[in-house]
Amino acid sequence: MADLFATHKPVLDQALAAIAGRGYWAAYPEMPSGKIYGETAKADAEAAFQALLNKPFALDQPGSGGFGGRERSPYGLELGITYPKASVPRLLEAARKAAPGWAEATPEARVGVCLEILHRLNRQSFLIAQAVMHTSGQAFVMAFQAGGPHAQDRGLEAVAYAYDEMKRVPVRARWEKPAGKGEPLRLDKEFRIVPRGIAVVIGCSTFPTWNSYPGLFASLATGNPVIVKPHPGAILPLALTVKIGREVLKEAGFDPNVLLLAADLADGETQALVTDPLVAIIDFTGGPAFGRWLEENARQAQLFTEKAGINPVVIDSTDDFEGMCANIAFSLSLYSGQMCTAPQNIFVPRSGIATDQGHKTFEEVGAGIARAIDRLLGDPDRAAAVLGAIQSDATWERVQKEAAAGEVVHPATPVAIPGFPQARAVTPLVRKVAAAAEETYAEEKFGPISFLIATGDTAESIRRAAAGASAKGAITAAIYTTDPDVLVAAEKAFAEAGVALSENLTGGVFVNQSAAFSDYHVSGANPAGNACLTDAAFVANRFRVAMVRRPAKAA
Amino acid sequence: MADLFATHKPVLDQALAAIAGRGYWAAYPEMPSGKIYGETAKADAEAAFQALLNKPFALDQPGSGGFGGRERSPYGLELGITYPKASVPRLLEAARKAAPGWAEATPEARVGVCLEILHRLNRQSFLIAQAVMHTSGQAFVMAFQAGGPHAQDRGLEAVAYAYDEMKRVPVRARWEKPAGKGEPLRLDKEFRIVPRGIAVVIGCSTFPTWNSYPGLFASLATGNPVIVKPHPGAILPLALTVKIGREVLKEAGFDPNVLLLAADLADGETQALVTDPLVAIIDFTGGPAFGRWLEENARQAQLFTEKAGINPVVIDSTDDFEGMCANIAFSLSLYSGQMCTAPQNIFVPRSGIATDQGHKTFEEVGAGIARAIDRLLGDPDRAAAVLGAIQSDATWERVQKEAAAGEVVHPATPVAIPGFPQARAVTPLVRKVAAAAEETYAEEKFGPISFLIATGDTAESIRRAAAGASAKGAITAAIYTTDPDVLVAAEKAFAEAGVALSENLTGGVFVNQSAAFSDYHVSGANPAGNACLTDAAFVANRFRVAMVRRPAKAA
Repeated sequence: MADLFATHKPVLDQALAAIAGRGYWAAYPEMPSGKIYGETAKADAEAAFQALLNKPFALDQPGSGGFGGRERSPYGLELGITYPKASVPRLLEAARKAAPGWAEATPEARVGVCLEILHRLNRQSFLIAQAVMHTSGQAFVMAFQAGGPHAQDRGLEAVAYAYDEMKRVPVRARWEKPAGKGEPLRLDKEFRIVPRGIAVVIGCSTFPTWNSYPGLFASLATGNPVIVKPHPGAILPLALTVKIGREVLKEAGFDPNVLLLAADLADGETQALVTDPLVAIIDFTGGPAFGRWLEENARQAQLFTEKAGINPVVIDSTDDFEGMCANIAFSLSLYSGQMCTAPQNIFVPRSGIATDQGHKTFEEVGAGIARAIDRLLGDPDRAAAVLGAIQSDATWERVQKEAAAGEVVHPATPVAIPGFPQARAVTPLVRKVAAAAEETYAEEKFGPISFLIATGDTAESIRRAAAGASAKGAITAAIYTTDPDVLVAAEKAFAEAGVALSENLTGGVFVNQSAAFSDYHVSGANPAGNACLTDAAFVANRFRVAMVRRPAKAA
Repeated sequence: MADLFATHKPVLDQALAAIAGRGYWAAYPEMPSGKIYGETAKADAEAAFQALLNKPFALDQPGSGGFGGRERSPYGLELGITYPKASVPRLLEAARKAAPGWAEATPEARVGVCLEILHRLNRQSFLIAQAVMHTSGQAFVMAFQAGGPHAQDRGLEAVAYAYDEMKRVPVRARWEKPAGKGEPLRLDKEFRIVPRGIAVVIGCSTFPTWNSYPGLFASLATGNPVIVKPHPGAILPLALTVKIGREVLKEAGFDPNVLLLAADLADGETQALVTDPLVAIIDFTGGPAFGRWLEENARQAQLFTEKAGINPVVIDSTDDFEGMCANIAFSLSLYSGQMCTAPQNIFVPRSGIATDQGHKTFEEVGAGIARAIDRLLGDPDRAAAVLGAIQSDATWERVQKEAAAGEVVHPATPVAIPGFPQARAVTPLVRKVAAAAEETYAEEKFGPISFLIATGDTAESIRRAAAGASAKGAITAAIYTTDPDVLVAAEKAFAEAGVALSENLTGGVFVNQSAAFSDYHVSGANPAGNACLTDAAFVANRFRVAMVRRPAKAA
């Protein structure tokens, strides 16, 4: 096999420059274009996806012998794919046996394998897109971008940080201490990267690849075998990932059990897996309840979490009322609010705001956002492309319940998705509440549900938004204001609350978007998650350094 | 006040180069020499130390109003110094109020303050030496070196890593994403370092400064206020440190309550302090019992621990039997084995070993080490300079108990310390046990206590030594062998166990020595501690990044 590290070094070097500068950069093209991915790529992927349906998924790894799994596309399709039913003891044993060979490989060898896996994942972006679409419910273009190249960029970012951290540890050093007039004391030292142990990555149902790749590749690059535990509703994207990864590992001469899939676990088996003493690292994306369970119980492991966020928008004033309303409308609508970065709580002074169209009352602000939603989603094809489908029954039921619970600024109106009569989609529900009604808006209500909250003034809006972030977690915040002093106050408050703040977005960038190599996704400084995807802290503790020193011969 | 960062930038630059290369470097001269520190420095410090005795320590910080503390020198002296009795709520409140100003300072401003504190600590090294000597029981030269310049170097190392990590986060970035034929999307982004919160540093009685400075300066440099909680038996070295730190903070225009001393806490007050929700970081050096309590209870904080280690020596063969015995004898004797890096368990094949003096039986190896101990400690002045004094009653009683418990290779013979008739010192106790007698040697027996353990062969020695490290923790290991295959096996086994290995030390370097900027002290990969002093992981998670982004004007 060719030297994978040398092959991919140019992209690694660019990634290293990108994480240092945090400007715009992407390794993998986000356009689902035949010119880039091959003119037949889309059709080939559709055929490949169809060929996967209604049969066992070919993944040659140690298992229980059985097959299981029952994914249903939010677009209505029963996938009918089964996966090797995992046996936790066998997976752990296989990972344990695979570990030494992977640990002893050089950082370059491991990074080369990781980059080749990412490269091959990229070539399969159309197939991954089908898999992500029919598990998460994302519309096709989003499934392609977020599930394919954007996720791959996030994985590459993690590999770059991991490589950077490993390279900060020199391989060897000569220690030569002057000793007065005598011969110096001389030691030769060697520093060895020691991985932590077995890593488990727990995927979610909405962004099965985007949220899993950082932890997966960070652990892999630093020498830890990885067991991927997908959400039962979104196995296929990670099964494809593991399959491709195992192929590369094998071709590169490593035990493919460095990367394993833990699908179709029975009740209690996930708990047994993550609390096993062999498991040293866990990357978790999912709900706060299991997140807390992990914090309480998986104490033997380094735990990296992304849980829930209740993301606020503070509206103080604007010099582009239409642009603001359109931008917020898109943020509320995109993938039906099923993004960890989507806004939920929109704080507006009950006395209204100053705008380029003159003073707008609280009601008029709500009406402006509602009108913008209708404008955005008026065209059925565009509505389908923006909203996607509701991923889970729980989200669907939550919307119904909230829709009936109070005064509505914009209703949750069912939307037909062309070509998928069984898909469930609705326009985003926006409810109106008083700031005092915290019991209504102070918890995350995942899905296309948001609240227009009437406050005494912007100071109260910022205070409540930041306090909510500190107490319950937030990943993003947005503010609209023409007042520099308000900006300063908001920047200070949200920085202290550890929330990424977007200011006066009125054009083609949205608060829910988080770009690899530039946006630090999740701060790790509030309950929305304890880690950032990706920074140095996300990778530096996935390995340790073991030292050897011995007397050196005289120079 | 002058620009502290500019003043100290040359030393910072050298430190940054040193942590990248991990060769020999030191910022602060280790020789207690009048030529370096001033001809009157030693006498001045002795006078200053005498002037501190038997009165309240002047530290102007919020407290309960009372004074307390009762330190007794292991050399026999009642210090009679009292310290402002801490009130946990008042300390936390003072730190909370001091936090914003410190958080908002630039990394350069904070690092400048840290480097000035270290510079002033260095100038007070003779006084710190007195304080360390008369609390830890270290002999004067060791107290000077380990308590003064070596500790300062460790602090500087932490500052260098902290600065390096903070500088990896750019202050701002222009994000410019191509948009087909249209105008690119442009955002201006700002990245703000957000400290975690209040940090607590818990000191130990044997190396009150050396073990505390890394956490103290890492937290301080990254923007967190620090509350220093000294061991009740070793308050003075950290009280002096806090006093100097507060002076620098005040002169630099910061609230001096960024650095506070928590002395003379009543029962339960330390527990209340470390579990307070405001406390976000804890650095702990001390026994495994309180370490485990912290792990179980101080769950709101990032916890960095250095607990106990049971450090092994594996003797397989040697081409310098006398050098080996002398080297081991010194390691067992230095500061009476009261170092976290001192060896405890010496594994030797019961069939003996090959040496440059021919075959040596197991008994002869023990006799060689015993003879080397007697040779080293035969001169009373040298014995005093090497052994220091036993720090605590518990260690003294442990030695007495172990001395009576079985067959002895070298006895614990009382040693008189010239000038200090009340000081307790003994020659190191070496007992002989079979490998099967794990109940005797598999726990840490802190102090001048070690075991010569008879194994079946070197493979068993390595296996037992590495397994002990994995199970109970070890910071250092040593091996003596002339066989390259044995070296390879030992390097692999101890790397997997996360132990720093020293090979064939026969000269003037000893397994217990750990040099700043070169030796990674503690791996964090076994129960001896969860962190390394110092690497990137030690600092990278003491702060988070908060982002602001806004549409940019066209370039």
